[in-house]
Amino acid sequence: MLEKTTRMNYLFDFYQELLTDKQRSYMEYYYLEDYSLGEISETFNVSRQAVYDNIKRTETMLEEYEQKLDLYDRFEKRQRLLKQLKESVQKGSDDAIEIIETLENLD
Amino acid sequence: MLEKTTRMNYLFDFYQELLTDKQRSYMEYYYLEDYSLGEISETFNVSRQAVYDNIKRTETMLEEYEQKLDLYDRFEKRQRLLKQLKESVQKGSDDAIEIIETLENLD
Repeated sequence: MLEKTTRMNYLFDFYQELLTDKQRSYMEYYYLEDYSLGEISETFNVSRQAVYDNIKRTETMLEEYEQKLDLYDRFEKRQRLLKQLKESVQKGSDDAIEIIETLENLD
Repeated sequence: MLEKTTRMNYLFDFYQELLTDKQRSYMEYYYLEDYSLGEISETFNVSRQAVYDNIKRTETMLEEYEQKLDLYDRFEKRQRLLKQLKESVQKGSDDAIEIIETLENLD
């Protein structure tokens, strides 16, 4: 569950601009503010089922956007390479230029 | 016009997965293969106006996606920083780590 929450937080971060205001609100309450479905349904004065359905649909949409645009996956690859690169520069190793070129070609 | 073509090629590259098959086909013929509107309308057996309207709508959609997700702009920023970084590493300057950290925080 924790892993799913982390993933949803990242996907939300990357793709939230593509969601409707309502989808964004529910996701913020549920994933960022840690409200329960019941609390969100009271806050917005809608049924718990309606909140649940909306959030499930939004999660599916976020995964579909990720399948198409791959932003989270590429973000992680870049961050890993930048970490390696920093170590390489700090140690004065030879492979820094190679890592930079991998980064240039990643986009 | 050349500048617009370059920009559209990039935007198409970043966001084509979000388009329909028809939108993608027309854009490929028009921007990548350099077909004229008339040639595309003959190829697909539709009116020249229909092709024109579809391409204009697609261009607007691509600009809207860019406004929301900023992928092309961030790509350009990263590429500029990677170029600087490469020069910095080659010269053995002190600012390489700083540039790497800017890149880490750019995402």
